[in-house]
Amino acid sequence: MCQLLGMNCNVPTDICFSFEGFSARGGKTDDHSDGWGIAFFEGKGCRMFIDPKSSVSSPIADFVRCYPIHSTHVIAHIRKATQGEIALENCHPFRRELWGQYWVFAHNGDLPNFSPVGMQFYQAVGNTDSEKAFCLMLETLRERFPFGKPPLEELYPVLQEVTDKLASTGIFNYLLTNGEHFFAHCSTKLCYIVRQAPFAAAHLIDEDVTVDFRELTTPSDRVAVIATTPLTDNEVWTPIAPGELLVFQDGLPITKELS
Amino acid sequence: MCQLLGMNCNVPTDICFSFEGFSARGGKTDDHSDGWGIAFFEGKGCRMFIDPKSSVSSPIADFVRCYPIHSTHVIAHIRKATQGEIALENCHPFRRELWGQYWVFAHNGDLPNFSPVGMQFYQAVGNTDSEKAFCLMLETLRERFPFGKPPLEELYPVLQEVTDKLASTGIFNYLLTNGEHFFAHCSTKLCYIVRQAPFAAAHLIDEDVTVDFRELTTPSDRVAVIATTPLTDNEVWTPIAPGELLVFQDGLPITKELS
Repeated sequence: MCQLLGMNCNVPTDICFSFEGFSARGGKTDDHSDGWGIAFFEGKGCRMFIDPKSSVSSPIADFVRCYPIHSTHVIAHIRKATQGEIALENCHPFRRELWGQYWVFAHNGDLPNFSPVGMQFYQAVGNTDSEKAFCLMLETLRERFPFGKPPLEELYPVLQEVTDKLASTGIFNYLLTNGEHFFAHCSTKLCYIVRQAPFAAAHLIDEDVTVDFRELTTPSDRVAVIATTPLTDNEVWTPIAPGELLVFQDGLPITKELS
Repeated sequence: MCQLLGMNCNVPTDICFSFEGFSARGGKTDDHSDGWGIAFFEGKGCRMFIDPKSSVSSPIADFVRCYPIHSTHVIAHIRKATQGEIALENCHPFRRELWGQYWVFAHNGDLPNFSPVGMQFYQAVGNTDSEKAFCLMLETLRERFPFGKPPLEELYPVLQEVTDKLASTGIFNYLLTNGEHFFAHCSTKLCYIVRQAPFAAAHLIDEDVTVDFRELTTPSDRVAVIATTPLTDNEVWTPIAPGELLVFQDGLPITKELS
């Protein structure tokens, strides 16, 4: 199993505080030490850092902890290998292009009964169930909407359908984004928090670090942080219900408006 | 216009020495300061660092200069924008998946008369002629070989054909690799050097730095470095002829064996 961390905001924000606590779970406060990765969207562009080293020993993770990269859509992952050996090609997040946009995906869980057949467009490079599931999701979207990206209202039910199909073969918590929409699916365990005015101080669970967001924000800022388990011990995190596929936009879940 | 740097070796090698001289051209010894990028293959996996900042001012480039990443297939690029604004999505190298492998591409030149139509599989995310040309190359390979990767002997003439077509629309120096084969095409300017035993010392043109490869190598090591212009002033670089598409393997050009 693995752990997920995501961020969606209405203005580009750095994830250094959350990533510091999260990455400690890659070998220090927890044992997800079989690699890690993080993807940042900046407009249509996307930069990724991945490493098969543990996030507590990786010099690249050190760099990401200290260098603030501002982004509205971020997905991070620390890995505890189930399927697929410890290797660069098996590190999440994975990325492919669909409809002229990069799509980025990270998975927590295990799909022991999943084996895709007849893939036309996307093939896994590594040998994780996660990357294969991602390929199937994009393949399904591409087949249903061959002429380009549909409105979110049309995309959402198709994504829900392929998600349900995959979730029926095992445990399928995931984060997915194209830099425009941010999807978070809970199969067994995923929660989120929305930080907005009035801001307060937050204290990490995994490191003795406090940040006072009042000093770092403007009143209109809004940031949603999504994680496998809460990252702070003095804030209230909202669990996502098993089977629920949330869509975040500008730091808020908007899924209710879609149904 | 831009500049290219590539490396292909028979054992994983770091590119720190060459990248130090090359990246100085991104604003210090030359004016290619509209972004930079580098891709490293490690087995089937591929890690990339890209940044729209100049390579002399980018903290990520600083990190890459100092942190030795060992790889057999490396492509780097510093950008001087012709088509496409300065933005993350327009930084080279570009990457897509084909036949279950990552393919990485960087371009030096300008294709003013190129406008692809009817793309089925790959679409550009940014708005450079380079990314569009890369998409057309992969699209052509995929269409000709829909059932998987052919032997190099069959792939090479198709790549040569689409390369010639693209080169006829402008200037098209490029580096392309799938982590297995390493292609280098010269349209106007590209050269290479093969370093192998007996090794000697090399001195950079762009920085006053000397490395004595005798201290860092074993007798069986072999490294080809490909660049827009020579990076060292005490070695003999071989120019690639305009129109020539070289294939490197284990640090040697093998193209003659293909024809």
